Amino acid sequence: MDDLIERLRAGLPAEALITDPDVTVSYGRDMAGFCAAGTPAVVVLPRTVEQVRHVMRTATALRVPVVPQGARTGLSGAANASDGCIVLSLLRMDRILEISPVDRIAVVEPGVVNADLSRAVGELGLAYPPDPSSWESCTIGGNIGTASGGLCCVKYGVTAEYVLGLEVVLADGRLLNTGRRTAKGVAGYDLTRLFVGSEGSLGIVVKAVLALRPKPPAQLVLGAEFPSAAAACAAICAVMERGHTPSLLELMDRTTVRAVNATTGMGLPETTEALLLCAFDTPDPAADLAAVGELCRAAGATEVVPADTPAESELLLQARRSALPALESLSTATMIDDVCVPRSRLGEMIEGTARIAEKYGLTIGVCAHAGDGNTHPVVCFDQHDPEESRRARESFDAIMALGLELGGTITGEHGVGVLKKEWLARELGPVGLEMQRGIKAAFDPLNILNPGKLF
Amino acid sequence: MDDLIERLRAGLPAEALITDPDVTVSYGRDMAGFCAAGTPAVVVLPRTVEQVRHVMRTATALRVPVVPQGARTGLSGAANASDGCIVLSLLRMDRILEISPVDRIAVVEPGVVNADLSRAVGELGLAYPPDPSSWESCTIGGNIGTASGGLCCVKYGVTAEYVLGLEVVLADGRLLNTGRRTAKGVAGYDLTRLFVGSEGSLGIVVKAVLALRPKPPAQLVLGAEFPSAAAACAAICAVMERGHTPSLLELMDRTTVRAVNATTGMGLPETTEALLLCAFDTPDPAADLAAVGELCRAAGATEVVPADTPAESELLLQARRSALPALESLSTATMIDDVCVPRSRLGEMIEGTARIAEKYGLTIGVCAHAGDGNTHPVVCFDQHDPEESRRARESFDAIMALGLELGGTITGEHGVGVLKKEWLARELGPVGLEMQRGIKAAFDPLNILNPGKLF
Repeated sequence: MDDLIERLRAGLPAEALITDPDVTVSYGRDMAGFCAAGTPAVVVLPRTVEQVRHVMRTATALRVPVVPQGARTGLSGAANASDGCIVLSLLRMDRILEISPVDRIAVVEPGVVNADLSRAVGELGLAYPPDPSSWESCTIGGNIGTASGGLCCVKYGVTAEYVLGLEVVLADGRLLNTGRRTAKGVAGYDLTRLFVGSEGSLGIVVKAVLALRPKPPAQLVLGAEFPSAAAACAAICAVMERGHTPSLLELMDRTTVRAVNATTGMGLPETTEALLLCAFDTPDPAADLAAVGELCRAAGATEVVPADTPAESELLLQARRSALPALESLSTATMIDDVCVPRSRLGEMIEGTARIAEKYGLTIGVCAHAGDGNTHPVVCFDQHDPEESRRARESFDAIMALGLELGGTITGEHGVGVLKKEWLARELGPVGLEMQRGIKAAFDPLNILNPGKLF
Repeated sequence: MDDLIERLRAGLPAEALITDPDVTVSYGRDMAGFCAAGTPAVVVLPRTVEQVRHVMRTATALRVPVVPQGARTGLSGAANASDGCIVLSLLRMDRILEISPVDRIAVVEPGVVNADLSRAVGELGLAYPPDPSSWESCTIGGNIGTASGGLCCVKYGVTAEYVLGLEVVLADGRLLNTGRRTAKGVAGYDLTRLFVGSEGSLGIVVKAVLALRPKPPAQLVLGAEFPSAAAACAAICAVMERGHTPSLLELMDRTTVRAVNATTGMGLPETTEALLLCAFDTPDPAADLAAVGELCRAAGATEVVPADTPAESELLLQARRSALPALESLSTATMIDDVCVPRSRLGEMIEGTARIAEKYGLTIGVCAHAGDGNTHPVVCFDQHDPEESRRARESFDAIMALGLELGGTITGEHGVGVLKKEWLARELGPVGLEMQRGIKAAFDPLNILNPGKLF
């Protein structure tokens, strides 16, 4: 270990190296529960590509595992340290290198905070759509590593669709350029997409070319209250089947609505079994909301409230934004699941989750990126009660099993990390897993890049 | 070889096996010029996944190369046979298995013709946007193999963005499922995207889950004539910089305009140095066209003609559609290049191509998916003149060199095949190439899947 520190020091400024265990311990984990985390040997915070290359060359020479980290807002333990590892934090590589309105691209370092980029391109009339809930603190590098989603995905898609090209430091310190700066390109296998969502297991992203869009008009939001989750899901299916393209289509179940009421005093009726939020950023959002309002009423909505102004819309969105904190206030701990099903199966997913909550005797609130069929069941439990904690973990697993049964995936946007490793194997099957491992071996033959994550 | 045929016959119906050399020779090549093609040992036309698996198991057992084929409309020789290979034609696996308007997906076999799918989903109010020029004959499997583009890409993106999941027969006959039926999903490395554009070198796609969109309104087209290509490119940059989202933005240079005039009697003024076509499928396309018309005039357009009706629009699009046949009529042979540059460099690309035409003493017409920066310089030459043919090949290469110099890629949508193998190595560099080869080896360790293509 002394050798490791000495070697690292040879290519890094003193301030880029943290060895004090009282400090390094704070880099131990991301925001996921139920995930093992080890103690890093050292934390490095490089500012340049050359410094990252030095770190990786050192790691390869000494066979030391490297765990790349952004803002550690992840929810699957993918950024958790392993014992004796080098934590490679990209937070100080935080420059926006270029924004081109004509080419509609931005070139950034991995430590740029999502919201900082959004604001910078916004000033030029552009948008970088991916908007995970943690957008005020999460980094673009982390977004790329975990292939993050967000509220906008139903219209604008996920991070993967906005990454055009990458500069990557490989396990042995060599530099790889993937992709392009152009709108299109098909030269060879799409390595760029391979890195998106690879959770730091294939290489260290040190630069990214991102696609931008013209900034859309402000969105207008509608809230609709339903007497059952099934009715709300029928409305969602009708909206999508009729060819609407909402910029947001979110669902909160009864448990979530009540928790939000309790913590914010929002005064939603206690009879509400499901609250649907739908938004449009089209040229005539009021007309689109009127059409959706009709579909909601036809599906049985008891109340349909379209906002007239962006300010009223903002109030409605507050309810959605306060959902997670509200559910977290119900117990000493929560686990947030991330099952995505075909949207035609959303109703079954939500009803099935309610049955799972009953079976395990737990409170499970569901909020969902409903337009995408991406549910976030939040399992509330007392972490100081081992038996209840066990039931929480079992219900968490039962939710994933249900998702797979309905033709879905165990993770719509949070990733696998260490939390869902066993479930990834179940979703992919042995052939799929073998192919994934083959790719890992091609990029990281010594298995030093975030080992023990994914599979 | 007798052994090969016997073994194949054991798992295929008689009508799925062609051994007559007079017939197999017609499966020798796609539509690319300047590309070597060998003589297949046998052509197989399976109808089921199980039959494809039998073919691949046989190929693996006997170490016989397999060249997968769709409609052979490709332009890079990726579907060209190699000597003694099995040509695996997927044309008879042509069923549309499912269309779901709620989930906005279609599930198809690889031999489905692009236009057939478009029409089938169109009847349900949906669209499958990717629209390569060959859409009336090319197959979805071929589109996936080559990651095809088309006219719509500037707004709707390329094939890659519409492939959600795949069923693939691996080199050894095992079955691999990738991706999902859901709108989102991040379970493991994105193998789906890896297969898109892999030119049949990683596995045989036997089923695809495709994303659909609501059918957009009919588009309205504007034509604008410019006194120089530079002025037209300035207009294109202005359109994109101002945040417009055209559904089509195409450019034809002087050579192309004159060729179209000559073959169609379209009567465009001979003074036109560049013709720009721009379309919108927005709720108010006339207003969008008016705004673009202003930008064209400000950039120096001598004539701006917005269509008032879809029928008039169709007439304007005829000019674009007749561009390639018109250029082909100028000589005994043509080579179509496919260089994509950042759209801010499009003017330099077109001017540079004109200089290359002059230097090599050849006619080179350029039509371009201008909104994407994707140019198709068409080199016209006499194939019976060896010296002119040599100059044609050299100018073709010079165009790619220029594209790379301008920060572009050697192929925006046609792929690498055998035509651009050397250039792929140049674009990717040694590290990139090594990583690509590592992936190939992980999927196809015996190198029997379309060997000799890509790299």
